[in-house]
Amino acid sequence: MTLSLGVLYSGGKDSTLAALLLAPFYDVTLTTAHFGVTDDWKHARATAESAGFDFERLQLDPGVATEAVERIRDDGFPRNGIQLVHEHALERAAEAGYDAIADGTRRDDRVPTVSRAQAQSLEDRHGVDYIAPLSGFGRGAVDRLTESRLDVTAGPSEEIPRADYEAELRTIIAEEDGEEAVRGLFPDHVQTHVTRVR
Amino acid sequence: MTLSLGVLYSGGKDSTLAALLLAPFYDVTLTTAHFGVTDDWKHARATAESAGFDFERLQLDPGVATEAVERIRDDGFPRNGIQLVHEHALERAAEAGYDAIADGTRRDDRVPTVSRAQAQSLEDRHGVDYIAPLSGFGRGAVDRLTESRLDVTAGPSEEIPRADYEAELRTIIAEEDGEEAVRGLFPDHVQTHVTRVR
Repeated sequence: MTLSLGVLYSGGKDSTLAALLLAPFYDVTLTTAHFGVTDDWKHARATAESAGFDFERLQLDPGVATEAVERIRDDGFPRNGIQLVHEHALERAAEAGYDAIADGTRRDDRVPTVSRAQAQSLEDRHGVDYIAPLSGFGRGAVDRLTESRLDVTAGPSEEIPRADYEAELRTIIAEEDGEEAVRGLFPDHVQTHVTRVR
Repeated sequence: MTLSLGVLYSGGKDSTLAALLLAPFYDVTLTTAHFGVTDDWKHARATAESAGFDFERLQLDPGVATEAVERIRDDGFPRNGIQLVHEHALERAAEAGYDAIADGTRRDDRVPTVSRAQAQSLEDRHGVDYIAPLSGFGRGAVDRLTESRLDVTAGPSEEIPRADYEAELRTIIAEEDGEEAVRGLFPDHVQTHVTRVR
């Protein structure tokens, strides 16, 4: 019997590679977690479907978005707020009934991170395997795999269609505090969106 | 062009799964590092060939075996000695000309471990990607993958044919200090040897 796996999916290169690495071993569903603030999850669905993966949406608690936005305003930078949302998304994915869940966190990521203790706790509390297939890959290996298997568009966050938590958090802050506030809180950051899996 | 990858290979389940995870993305050679103390590397070769992988031996410096054995005697336990040998084997593999190298270290392993800083240093000094594909897998996920893809024999270290460093270090200590010394220094430990990849 093939084990079911839900991969937290943004449509970016990391979560796409995570899915490709595990696809020979699991029955993979790409799962995009969102607060219902924007329709950006549709970009992830388009990539998932063009790559032949099953796709599901995972509804997050809007209260966590509020908490994350407050945290980002207080900190003056997004790291801890995004970490908060990722931990919530992992909890929701772990409750969704898959045998295993995965994400695209890499060895060199500063955020989100999932410690060994957090991983073990998630597994023990939910009876699920948590897998971070890219956590043993450095930036160079990820770049070379991307080049060999994916077509991507890359650019500043505000120009790239994607479905990560940051997009919704930025939208909330833009609506409440204005675009200038977003530019002040979120550092310039190149995002990728996968347009095709080869 | 497919990238070449050398996987440090013992014939056990972890290094076999590491190879299977990366095989769709790299031109994989299973590489068994040894000191030339025993012929145990042939067990790894047999498994590698039956699974259809290319196989190479990697000659380690016998001076490192001497150093590791001294460390194990001084410590009274094998952990640091085995770590020493693994770091040496990674250096040798990194010099062997592959585009990337990998090992079977898992999230929950206490030994060997490769820190993020060690990985980065290895990559920077040798111009090679270092990948630990199982470092994001816990024990449960590894056990379930093993069950679905591998036939294994499992038992106490002294009864299982295998080609890890421990086997050669145990042999050296047995020859120099007697079997009783081996039992005193190495805790009871279940080893696996892969007999077939499905």
